[in-house]
Amino acid sequence: MKIVLIGAGNVATHLGTALQKAGCSILQVYSRTEESASALAAKLSTDYTLKVEEICGDADLYIVALKDTALQLLASALVKGREQALFVHTAGSMPMDLWKGVAERYGVLYPMQTFSKRREVDLGTVPFFIEASSSEELELLRKIAACLSPKVYEATSEQRKHLHLAAVFACNFANHMYALSSYILKKQGIPFEVMLSLIDETAGKVHELSPVQAQTGPAVRYDENVICKHLDMLVDEASLQELYEMISKSIHNLPLSVSSADKRGKK
Amino acid sequence: MKIVLIGAGNVATHLGTALQKAGCSILQVYSRTEESASALAAKLSTDYTLKVEEICGDADLYIVALKDTALQLLASALVKGREQALFVHTAGSMPMDLWKGVAERYGVLYPMQTFSKRREVDLGTVPFFIEASSSEELELLRKIAACLSPKVYEATSEQRKHLHLAAVFACNFANHMYALSSYILKKQGIPFEVMLSLIDETAGKVHELSPVQAQTGPAVRYDENVICKHLDMLVDEASLQELYEMISKSIHNLPLSVSSADKRGKK
Repeated sequence: MKIVLIGAGNVATHLGTALQKAGCSILQVYSRTEESASALAAKLSTDYTLKVEEICGDADLYIVALKDTALQLLASALVKGREQALFVHTAGSMPMDLWKGVAERYGVLYPMQTFSKRREVDLGTVPFFIEASSSEELELLRKIAACLSPKVYEATSEQRKHLHLAAVFACNFANHMYALSSYILKKQGIPFEVMLSLIDETAGKVHELSPVQAQTGPAVRYDENVICKHLDMLVDEASLQELYEMISKSIHNLPLSVSSADKRGKK
Repeated sequence: MKIVLIGAGNVATHLGTALQKAGCSILQVYSRTEESASALAAKLSTDYTLKVEEICGDADLYIVALKDTALQLLASALVKGREQALFVHTAGSMPMDLWKGVAERYGVLYPMQTFSKRREVDLGTVPFFIEASSSEELELLRKIAACLSPKVYEATSEQRKHLHLAAVFACNFANHMYALSSYILKKQGIPFEVMLSLIDETAGKVHELSPVQAQTGPAVRYDENVICKHLDMLVDEASLQELYEMISKSIHNLPLSVSSADKRGKK
Protein backbone atom coordinates (compact mmCIF):
# COMPACT_ATOMS: atom_id res chain seq x y z
CA MET A 1 0.00 0.00 0.00
CA LYS A 2 1.57 3.28 -1.20
CA ILE A 3 0.41 6.30 0.75
CA VAL A 4 0.82 10.08 0.49
CA LEU A 5 0.15 12.16 3.61
CA ILE A 6 -1.57 15.49 2.93
CA GLY A 7 -0.86 17.53 6.04
CA ALA A 8 1.97 17.24 8.55
CA GLY A 9 0.24 18.05 11.82
CA ASN A 10 -0.40 15.85 14.86
CA VAL A 11 -2.84 13.48 13.17
CA ALA A 12 -0.70 13.00 10.05
CA THR A 13 2.37 12.42 12.20
CA HIS A 14 0.76 9.74 14.37
CA LEU A 15 -1.01 7.97 11.49
CA GLY A 16 2.01 8.12 9.19
CA THR A 17 4.33 6.70 11.81
CA ALA A 18 1.96 3.86 12.68
CA LEU A 19 1.16 3.01 9.03
CA GLN A 20 4.86 2.86 8.19
CA LYS A 21 5.40 0.50 11.15
CA ALA A 22 2.53 -1.62 9.84
CA GLY A 23 4.41 -2.05 6.55
CA CYS A 24 2.87 0.67 4.39
CA SER A 25 5.10 2.77 2.18
CA ILE A 26 4.81 6.52 2.80
CA LEU A 27 5.78 7.99 -0.57
CA GLN A 28 5.60 11.68 0.30
CA VAL A 29 4.39 14.32 2.74
CA TYR A 30 2.62 17.51 1.63
CA SER A 31 2.19 20.58 3.80
CA ARG A 32 2.03 24.31 3.20
CA THR A 33 4.45 24.80 6.09
CA GLU A 34 8.04 23.83 5.32
CA GLU A 35 8.91 23.30 8.98
CA SER A 36 6.16 20.71 9.52
CA ALA A 37 6.62 19.05 6.15
CA SER A 38 10.36 18.61 6.52
CA ALA A 39 10.08 17.42 10.14
CA LEU A 40 7.56 14.70 9.33
CA ALA A 41 9.36 13.67 6.11
CA ALA A 42 12.60 13.33 8.10
CA LYS A 43 10.82 11.26 10.74
CA LEU A 44 9.50 8.92 8.06
CA SER A 45 12.69 9.05 5.91
CA THR A 46 10.67 10.17 2.90
CA ASP A 47 10.24 13.19 0.60
CA TYR A 48 8.10 16.24 1.03
CA THR A 49 6.64 18.97 -1.12
CA LEU A 50 5.06 22.37 -0.42
CA LYS A 51 3.28 22.52 -3.79
CA VAL A 52 0.03 20.75 -4.60
CA GLU A 53 1.05 20.28 -8.24
CA GLU A 54 4.18 18.39 -7.14
CA ILE A 55 2.28 15.81 -5.09
CA CYS A 56 3.17 12.47 -6.62
CA GLY A 57 0.51 10.68 -8.66
CA ASP A 58 1.20 7.02 -8.09
CA ALA A 59 -0.05 6.43 -4.52
CA ASP A 60 -2.97 4.08 -3.80
CA LEU A 61 -4.20 6.18 -0.90
CA TYR A 62 -4.11 9.90 -0.08
CA ILE A 63 -4.73 10.59 3.61
CA VAL A 64 -5.84 14.18 4.05
CA ALA A 65 -5.29 15.46 7.59
CA LEU A 66 -5.75 19.21 7.18
CA LYS A 67 -7.72 21.90 8.98
CA ASP A 68 -11.33 21.78 7.74
CA THR A 69 -11.04 25.03 5.78
CA ALA A 70 -7.86 23.88 3.99
CA LEU A 71 -9.49 20.52 3.23
CA GLN A 72 -12.39 22.25 1.50
CA LEU A 73 -10.11 24.60 -0.42
CA LEU A 74 -7.72 21.90 -1.63
CA ALA A 75 -9.97 18.89 -2.33
CA SER A 76 -10.35 19.45 -6.10
CA ALA A 77 -6.70 20.33 -6.67
CA LEU A 78 -5.61 17.21 -4.77
CA VAL A 79 -7.70 14.84 -6.90
CA LYS A 80 -6.84 16.39 -10.29
CA GLY A 81 -4.62 13.98 -12.23
CA ARG A 82 -4.92 11.34 -9.49
CA GLU A 83 -8.48 10.18 -10.19
CA GLN A 84 -7.69 6.47 -9.83
CA ALA A 85 -6.63 6.77 -6.15
CA LEU A 86 -8.61 6.56 -2.91
CA PHE A 87 -8.96 9.86 -1.01
CA VAL A 88 -9.83 9.90 2.67
CA HIS A 89 -9.94 12.66 5.24
CA THR A 90 -9.45 12.26 8.98
CA ALA A 91 -11.62 15.11 10.32
CA GLY A 92 -14.54 14.11 12.52
CA SER A 93 -16.60 17.14 11.66
CA MET A 94 -16.44 17.04 7.84
CA PRO A 95 -19.04 15.03 5.88
CA MET A 96 -17.88 12.41 3.40
CA ASP A 97 -19.85 14.17 0.64
CA LEU A 98 -17.26 16.91 0.34
CA TRP A 99 -15.55 14.49 -2.10
CA LYS A 100 -18.73 13.85 -4.14
CA GLY A 101 -18.26 14.98 -7.74
CA VAL A 102 -14.60 15.65 -6.95
CA ALA A 103 -13.13 12.17 -6.50
CA GLU A 104 -14.41 8.81 -7.70
CA ARG A 105 -13.19 6.74 -4.76
CA TYR A 106 -13.32 8.37 -1.36
CA GLY A 107 -14.01 7.93 2.31
CA VAL A 108 -13.25 8.92 5.89
CA LEU A 109 -10.80 7.49 8.43
CA TYR A 110 -11.50 9.24 11.75
CA PRO A 111 -9.30 8.31 14.69
CA MET A 112 -11.08 9.62 17.79
CA GLN A 113 -8.12 10.65 19.90
CA THR A 114 -6.19 13.71 21.06
CA PHE A 115 -2.81 13.89 19.37
CA SER A 116 0.05 16.13 20.45
CA LYS A 117 3.45 16.05 18.80
CA ARG A 118 5.24 15.74 22.12
CA ARG A 119 3.37 12.67 23.34
CA GLU A 120 3.37 9.11 21.96
CA VAL A 121 -0.07 7.52 21.59
CA ASP A 122 -0.79 3.80 21.46
CA LEU A 123 -3.09 3.75 18.41
CA GLY A 124 -4.08 0.19 19.38
CA THR A 125 -6.49 1.60 21.97
CA VAL A 126 -7.97 4.25 19.66
CA PRO A 127 -11.38 3.76 18.02
CA PHE A 128 -11.35 4.40 14.26
CA PHE A 129 -14.63 5.39 12.57
CA ILE A 130 -14.77 4.67 8.84
CA GLU A 131 -17.10 5.53 5.98
CA ALA A 132 -16.59 5.08 2.23
CA SER A 133 -18.10 5.77 -1.18
CA SER A 134 -18.62 2.06 -1.94
CA SER A 135 -18.52 -1.26 -0.12
CA GLU A 136 -15.20 -2.10 -1.82
CA GLU A 137 -13.57 1.08 -0.52
CA LEU A 138 -15.12 0.44 2.89
CA GLU A 139 -13.47 -3.00 3.06
CA LEU A 140 -10.16 -1.52 1.97
CA LEU A 141 -10.41 1.17 4.68
CA ARG A 142 -11.41 -1.46 7.24
CA LYS A 143 -8.21 -3.42 6.42
CA ILE A 144 -6.04 -0.33 6.70
CA ALA A 145 -7.64 0.73 10.01
CA ALA A 146 -7.35 -2.84 11.33
CA CYS A 147 -3.54 -2.60 10.92
CA LEU A 148 -3.68 0.28 13.42
CA SER A 149 -6.32 -0.72 15.96
CA PRO A 150 -8.73 -3.56 16.74
CA LYS A 151 -11.46 -0.95 17.36
CA VAL A 152 -12.80 -0.16 13.88
CA TYR A 153 -16.42 0.98 13.57
CA GLU A 154 -18.54 2.08 10.65
CA ALA A 155 -20.18 5.48 11.22
CA THR A 156 -22.23 7.74 8.95
CA SER A 157 -21.25 11.39 8.52
CA GLU A 158 -24.20 12.33 10.77
CA GLN A 159 -23.04 10.00 13.56
CA ARG A 160 -19.43 11.09 13.15
CA LYS A 161 -20.21 14.77 13.57
CA HIS A 162 -21.94 13.97 16.87
CA LEU A 163 -19.01 11.79 17.93
CA HIS A 164 -16.73 14.74 17.23
CA LEU A 165 -18.92 17.14 19.23
CA ALA A 166 -19.06 14.66 22.12
CA ALA A 167 -15.28 14.26 21.93
CA VAL A 168 -14.81 18.04 22.21
CA PHE A 169 -16.66 17.90 25.54
CA ALA A 170 -14.99 14.74 26.91
CA CYS A 171 -11.50 15.72 25.80
CA ASN A 172 -10.91 19.40 24.99
CA PHE A 173 -13.37 20.77 27.55
CA ALA A 174 -12.36 18.29 30.28
CA ASN A 175 -8.72 19.21 29.63
CA HIS A 176 -9.62 22.87 29.95
CA MET A 177 -11.03 22.14 33.40
CA TYR A 178 -7.58 20.72 34.25
CA ALA A 179 -6.03 23.91 32.82
CA LEU A 180 -8.24 26.15 34.97
CA SER A 181 -7.44 23.99 38.00
CA SER A 182 -3.74 24.38 37.26
CA TYR A 183 -4.20 28.15 36.90
CA ILE A 184 -5.87 28.39 40.34
CA LEU A 185 -3.13 26.29 41.96
CA LYS A 186 -0.34 28.23 40.26
CA LYS A 187 -1.56 31.49 41.75
CA GLN A 188 -1.16 29.84 45.18
CA GLY A 189 2.26 28.39 44.37
CA ILE A 190 0.92 24.81 44.57
CA PRO A 191 2.26 22.38 41.94
CA PHE A 192 -0.31 20.84 39.57
CA GLU A 193 1.06 17.35 40.34
CA VAL A 194 -1.06 17.14 43.52
CA MET A 195 -4.13 17.01 41.26
CA LEU A 196 -3.07 13.99 39.16
CA SER A 197 -4.43 11.27 41.44
CA LEU A 198 -7.83 12.97 41.47
CA ILE A 199 -7.78 13.40 37.69
CA ASP A 200 -6.93 9.72 37.17
CA GLU A 201 -9.66 8.58 39.54
CA THR A 202 -12.21 10.88 37.87
CA ALA A 203 -11.38 9.30 34.49
CA GLY A 204 -11.25 5.80 36.01
CA LYS A 205 -14.66 6.10 37.65
CA VAL A 206 -16.59 6.45 34.40
CA HIS A 207 -15.37 3.01 33.33
CA GLU A 208 -17.64 1.64 36.09
CA LEU A 209 -20.30 4.27 36.73
CA SER A 210 -22.09 6.57 34.30
CA PRO A 211 -20.78 10.15 34.56
CA VAL A 212 -24.07 11.26 36.14
CA GLN A 213 -23.78 8.50 38.79
CA ALA A 214 -20.09 9.33 39.30
CA GLN A 215 -20.68 13.03 40.01
CA THR A 216 -19.70 14.35 43.45
CA GLY A 217 -18.98 17.79 44.89
CA PRO A 218 -20.87 20.95 45.88
CA ALA A 219 -22.86 21.44 42.65
CA VAL A 220 -24.52 18.02 42.50
CA ARG A 221 -25.57 18.14 46.17
CA TYR A 222 -26.40 21.84 45.69
CA ASP A 223 -24.31 22.96 48.64
CA GLU A 224 -24.93 26.71 48.30
CA ASN A 225 -22.60 27.47 51.18
CA VAL A 226 -19.58 26.05 49.29
CA ILE A 227 -20.73 27.35 45.90
CA CYS A 228 -21.03 30.92 47.24
CA LYS A 229 -17.59 30.74 48.89
CA HIS A 230 -16.05 29.55 45.62
CA LEU A 231 -17.75 32.33 43.68
CA ASP A 232 -16.36 34.83 46.21
CA MET A 233 -12.87 33.42 45.73
CA LEU A 234 -13.16 34.06 41.98
CA VAL A 235 -14.30 37.67 42.38
CA ASP A 236 -11.23 39.00 40.53
CA GLU A 237 -11.60 36.52 37.70
CA ALA A 238 -14.94 37.48 36.14
CA SER A 239 -14.88 34.93 33.31
CA LEU A 240 -13.86 32.09 35.63
CA GLN A 241 -16.57 33.07 38.07
CA GLU A 242 -19.20 33.07 35.32
CA LEU A 243 -17.98 29.69 34.09
CA TYR A 244 -18.06 28.22 37.63
CA GLU A 245 -21.65 29.36 38.08
CA MET A 246 -22.84 28.14 34.71
CA ILE A 247 -21.23 24.70 35.02
CA SER A 248 -22.57 24.28 38.56
CA LYS A 249 -26.10 25.02 37.34
CA SER A 250 -25.61 22.62 34.45
CA ILE A 251 -24.45 19.86 36.86
CA HIS A 252 -27.46 20.44 39.04
CA ASN A 253 -29.89 20.39 36.09
CA LEU A 254 -28.44 17.60 33.93
CA PRO A 255 -30.02 14.62 35.70
CA LEU A 256 -33.41 16.24 34.96
CA SER A 257 -32.55 16.70 31.27
CA VAL A 258 -31.36 13.10 31.02
CA SER A 259 -34.52 11.75 32.60
CA SER A 260 -36.78 13.91 30.42
CA ALA A 261 -34.80 12.83 27.31
CA ASP A 262 -35.33 9.22 28.42
CA LYS A 263 -39.05 9.86 28.74
CA ARG A 264 -39.19 11.51 25.32
CA GLY A 265 -37.28 8.52 23.90
CA LYS A 266 -39.76 6.06 25.43
CA LYS A 267 -42.85 7.82 24.07
CA MET B 1 -6.51 4.55 68.36
CA LYS B 2 -10.27 4.68 69.11
CA ILE B 3 -12.26 6.58 66.54
CA VAL B 4 -15.86 7.76 66.15
CA LEU B 5 -17.08 8.65 62.66
CA ILE B 6 -19.42 11.64 62.54
CA GLY B 7 -21.20 11.28 59.21
CA ALA B 8 -21.83 8.17 57.13
CA GLY B 9 -21.47 9.46 53.60
CA ASN B 10 -18.87 8.60 50.97
CA VAL B 11 -15.90 10.16 52.76
CA ALA B 12 -16.74 8.59 56.15
CA THR B 13 -17.26 5.22 54.49
CA HIS B 14 -13.92 5.21 52.67
CA LEU B 15 -11.92 6.61 55.59
CA GLY B 16 -13.60 4.35 58.15
CA THR B 17 -12.99 1.23 56.11
CA ALA B 18 -9.35 2.09 55.52
CA LEU B 19 -8.68 3.11 59.13
CA GLN B 20 -10.19 -0.13 60.39
CA LYS B 21 -7.96 -2.08 57.98
CA ALA B 22 -5.00 -0.12 59.32
CA GLY B 23 -5.79 -1.40 62.82
CA CYS B 24 -7.81 1.46 64.30
CA SER B 25 -10.90 0.69 66.31
CA ILE B 26 -14.08 2.35 65.00
CA LEU B 27 -16.22 2.67 68.13
CA GLN B 28 -19.35 4.15 66.59
CA VAL B 29 -20.93 5.86 63.61
CA TYR B 30 -23.16 8.92 63.94
CA SER B 31 -25.49 10.14 61.20
CA ARG B 32 -28.84 11.89 61.07
CA THR B 33 -29.97 9.39 58.46
CA GLU B 34 -30.68 5.91 59.79
CA GLU B 35 -30.17 4.26 56.41
CA SER B 36 -26.61 5.61 56.02
CA ALA B 37 -25.72 5.14 59.69
CA SER B 38 -26.86 1.52 59.83
CA ALA B 39 -25.25 0.64 56.47
CA LEU B 40 -21.83 1.99 57.48
CA ALA B 41 -22.04 0.52 61.00
CA ALA B 42 -22.86 -2.90 59.49
CA LYS B 43 -19.95 -2.59 57.06
CA LEU B 44 -17.61 -1.84 59.97
CA SER B 45 -19.33 -4.28 62.40
CA THR B 46 -19.83 -1.49 64.90
CA ASP B 47 -22.63 0.52 66.56
CA TYR B 48 -24.39 3.60 65.35
CA THR B 49 -26.50 6.38 66.77
CA LEU B 50 -28.79 9.02 65.30
CA LYS B 51 -28.58 11.28 68.38
CA VAL B 52 -25.69 13.64 69.11
CA GLU B 53 -26.13 13.19 72.88
CA GLU B 54 -25.63 9.44 72.48
CA ILE B 55 -22.27 9.75 70.74
CA CYS B 56 -19.85 7.87 72.93
CA GLY B 57 -17.34 9.90 74.94
CA ASP B 58 -14.26 7.71 75.11
CA ALA B 59 -12.81 7.99 71.61
CA ASP B 60 -9.37 9.52 70.99
CA LEU B 61 -10.38 10.97 67.66
CA TYR B 62 -13.67 12.22 66.19
CA ILE B 63 -13.59 12.40 62.40
CA VAL B 64 -16.30 14.75 61.20
CA ALA B 65 -17.28 14.14 57.57
CA LEU B 66 -20.50 16.14 57.25
CA LYS B 67 -21.88 18.66 54.77
CA ASP B 68 -20.40 22.07 55.60
CA THR B 69 -23.65 23.46 56.97
CA ALA B 70 -24.19 20.46 59.28
CA LEU B 71 -20.57 20.72 60.44
CA GLN B 72 -21.08 24.35 61.49
CA LEU B 73 -24.37 23.56 63.22
CA LEU B 74 -23.10 20.54 65.15
CA ALA B 75 -19.52 21.48 66.11
CA SER B 76 -20.31 22.72 69.66
CA ALA B 77 -22.71 19.89 70.45
CA LEU B 78 -20.14 17.33 69.29
CA VAL B 79 -17.38 18.63 71.55
CA LYS B 80 -19.52 19.08 74.69
CA GLY B 81 -18.51 16.48 77.27
CA ARG B 82 -15.71 15.17 75.03
CA GLU B 83 -13.25 18.05 75.50
CA GLN B 84 -10.20 15.80 75.91
CA ALA B 85 -10.49 14.31 72.40
CA LEU B 86 -9.10 15.41 69.03
CA PHE B 87 -11.70 16.74 66.56
CA VAL B 88 -10.93 16.88 62.85
CA HIS B 89 -13.07 17.62 59.84
CA THR B 90 -12.48 16.35 56.31
CA ALA B 91 -13.96 19.19 54.25
CA GLY B 92 -11.60 21.02 51.94
CA SER B 93 -13.55 24.25 52.01
CA MET B 94 -13.95 24.75 55.79
CA PRO B 95 -11.28 26.64 57.77
CA MET B 96 -9.70 24.98 60.80
CA ASP B 97 -10.77 27.95 62.93
CA LEU B 98 -14.37 26.77 63.05
CA TRP B 99 -13.19 24.70 66.05
CA LYS B 100 -11.51 27.66 67.79
CA GLY B 101 -13.14 28.34 71.16
CA VAL B 102 -15.19 25.17 70.68
CA ALA B 103 -12.63 22.36 71.04
CA GLU B 104 -9.22 22.37 72.67
CA ARG B 105 -7.55 19.92 70.29
CA TYR B 106 -8.56 20.11 66.67
CA GLY B 107 -7.45 19.90 63.09
CA VAL B 108 -8.23 18.99 59.49
CA LEU B 109 -7.69 15.76 57.55
CA TYR B 110 -8.59 16.51 53.94
CA PRO B 111 -8.35 13.62 51.48
CA MET B 112 -8.40 15.19 48.03
CA GLN B 113 -10.33 12.56 46.12
CA THR B 114 -13.78 11.86 44.66
CA PHE B 115 -15.55 9.18 46.66
CA SER B 116 -18.67 7.30 45.55
CA LYS B 117 -20.22 4.50 47.56
CA ARG B 118 -20.31 2.18 44.58
CA ARG B 119 -16.62 2.43 43.72
CA GLU B 120 -13.58 1.25 45.69
CA VAL B 121 -10.75 3.78 45.93
CA ASP B 122 -7.10 2.96 46.63
CA LEU B 123 -6.43 5.54 49.36
CA GLY B 124 -2.72 4.84 48.94
CA THR B 125 -2.66 7.11 45.88
CA VAL B 126 -4.69 9.92 47.49
CA PRO B 127 -2.99 13.07 48.79
CA PHE B 128 -4.01 13.98 52.37
CA PHE B 129 -3.71 17.62 53.46
CA ILE B 130 -3.43 18.11 57.21
CA GLU B 131 -3.54 21.07 59.60
CA ALA B 132 -3.79 21.09 63.40
CA SER B 133 -4.17 23.32 66.43
CA SER B 134 -0.71 22.45 67.77
CA SER B 135 2.45 20.71 66.61
CA GLU B 136 1.59 17.69 68.79
CA GLU B 137 -1.79 17.27 67.14
CA LEU B 138 -0.17 17.80 63.75
CA GLU B 139 2.25 14.92 64.38
CA LEU B 140 -0.62 12.72 65.55
CA LEU B 141 -2.61 13.54 62.40
CA ARG B 142 0.48 12.92 60.27
CA LYS B 143 0.79 9.42 61.78
CA ILE B 144 -2.89 8.66 61.19
CA ALA B 145 -2.77 9.93 57.60
CA ALA B 146 0.47 8.01 56.99
CA CYS B 147 -1.41 4.76 57.76
CA LEU B 148 -3.65 5.57 54.80
CA SER B 149 -1.35 7.10 52.20
CA PRO B 150 2.30 7.99 51.67
CA LYS B 151 1.21 11.37 50.28
CA VAL B 152 0.66 13.52 53.38
CA TYR B 153 1.13 17.28 53.07
CA GLU B 154 0.70 20.14 55.49
CA ALA B 155 -1.59 22.88 54.14
CA THR B 156 -3.02 26.02 55.70
CA SER B 157 -6.77 26.69 55.60
CA GLU B 158 -6.11 29.32 52.90
CA GLN B 159 -4.19 26.83 50.72
CA ARG B 160 -6.73 24.09 51.33
CA LYS B 161 -9.65 26.20 50.18
CA HIS B 162 -7.85 26.85 46.91
CA LEU B 163 -6.99 23.15 46.61
CA HIS B 164 -10.68 22.41 47.02
CA LEU B 165 -11.70 24.98 44.40
CA ALA B 166 -9.07 23.61 42.00
CA ALA B 167 -10.34 20.08 42.69
CA VAL B 168 -13.90 21.11 41.80
CA PHE B 169 -12.60 22.15 38.36
CA ALA B 170 -10.32 19.13 37.78
CA CYS B 171 -12.80 16.57 39.08
CA ASN B 172 -16.45 17.66 39.29
CA PHE B 173 -16.36 19.96 36.27
CA ALA B 174 -14.25 17.58 34.15
CA ASN B 175 -16.68 14.78 35.05
CA HIS B 176 -19.55 17.01 33.98
CA MET B 177 -17.91 17.37 30.57
CA TYR B 178 -18.00 13.54 30.38
CA ALA B 179 -21.68 13.68 31.38
CA LEU B 180 -22.51 16.17 28.63
CA SER B 181 -20.55 14.06 26.13
CA SER B 182 -22.56 11.02 27.22
CA TYR B 183 -25.79 13.01 26.85
CA ILE B 184 -24.91 13.99 23.26
CA LEU B 185 -24.00 10.40 22.36
CA LYS B 186 -27.12 8.96 24.00
CA LYS B 187 -29.36 11.11 21.82
CA GLN B 188 -27.66 9.47 18.80
CA GLY B 189 -27.89 5.97 20.26
CA ILE B 190 -24.09 5.71 20.54
CA PRO B 191 -22.76 3.99 23.70
CA PHE B 192 -20.56 6.12 25.98
CA GLU B 193 -17.91 3.34 26.01
CA VAL B 194 -16.47 4.60 22.70
CA MET B 195 -15.30 7.71 24.59
CA LEU B 196 -13.27 5.93 27.30
CA SER B 197 -10.00 5.65 25.39
CA LEU B 198 -10.09 9.38 24.66
CA ILE B 199 -10.92 10.19 28.30
CA ASP B 200 -8.03 8.04 29.55
CA GLU B 201 -5.58 9.62 27.13
CA THR B 202 -6.77 13.13 28.06
CA ALA B 203 -6.09 12.34 31.74
CA GLY B 204 -2.83 10.56 30.90
CA LYS B 205 -1.47 13.46 28.83
CA VAL B 206 -1.34 15.90 31.74
CA HIS B 207 1.12 13.62 33.54
CA GLU B 208 3.64 14.61 30.83
CA LEU B 209 2.47 17.95 29.44
CA SER B 210 0.88 20.91 31.19
CA PRO B 211 -2.88 21.12 30.45
CA VAL B 212 -2.29 24.24 28.34
CA GLN B 213 0.36 22.41 26.28
CA ALA B 214 -1.88 19.34 26.03
CA GLN B 215 -4.88 21.22 24.62
CA THR B 216 -6.08 20.26 21.13
CA GLY B 217 -9.33 20.72 19.19
CA PRO B 218 -11.25 23.50 17.45
CA ALA B 219 -11.22 26.07 20.29
CA VAL B 220 -7.46 26.21 20.85
CA ARG B 221 -6.71 26.54 17.13
CA TYR B 222 -9.73 28.86 16.86
CA ASP B 223 -11.28 26.90 14.00
CA GLU B 224 -14.42 29.04 13.58
CA ASN B 225 -15.76 26.73 10.90
CA VAL B 226 -15.99 23.79 13.34
CA ILE B 227 -17.06 25.94 16.30
CA CYS B 228 -20.00 27.39 14.32
CA LYS B 229 -21.08 23.95 13.14
CA HIS B 230 -21.05 22.66 16.71
CA LEU B 231 -23.06 25.66 17.93
CA ASP B 232 -25.60 24.95 15.16
CA MET B 233 -25.85 21.32 16.28
CA LEU B 234 -26.73 22.52 19.79
CA VAL B 235 -29.44 24.93 18.63
CA ASP B 236 -32.17 23.03 20.55
CA GLU B 237 -30.09 22.87 23.73
CA ALA B 238 -29.75 26.53 24.71
CA SER B 239 -27.78 25.96 27.93
CA LEU B 240 -25.40 23.49 26.29
CA GLN B 241 -24.86 25.89 23.42
CA GLU B 242 -24.07 28.74 25.80
CA LEU B 243 -21.67 26.51 27.75
CA TYR B 244 -19.94 25.37 24.54
CA GLU B 245 -19.38 28.98 23.48
CA MET B 246 -18.17 30.14 26.88
CA ILE B 247 -15.72 27.27 27.37
CA SER B 248 -14.38 27.67 23.82
CA LYS B 249 -13.68 31.35 24.48
CA SER B 250 -12.05 30.47 27.78
CA ILE B 251 -9.80 27.91 26.06
CA HIS B 252 -8.79 30.46 23.48
CA ASN B 253 -8.04 33.14 26.09
CA LEU B 254 -6.40 31.11 28.86
CA PRO B 255 -2.85 31.00 27.46
CA LEU B 256 -2.92 34.83 27.50
CA SER B 257 -4.10 34.92 31.13
CA VAL B 258 -1.40 32.43 32.13
CA SER B 259 1.34 34.42 30.44
CA SER B 260 0.13 37.70 31.93
CA ALA B 261 -0.06 36.05 35.38
CA ASP B 262 3.52 34.85 34.84
CA LYS B 263 4.58 38.40 33.96
CA ARG B 264 2.82 39.82 37.02
CA GLY B 265 4.54 37.13 39.10
CA LYS B 266 7.98 38.07 37.74
CA LYS B 267 7.58 41.80 38.38
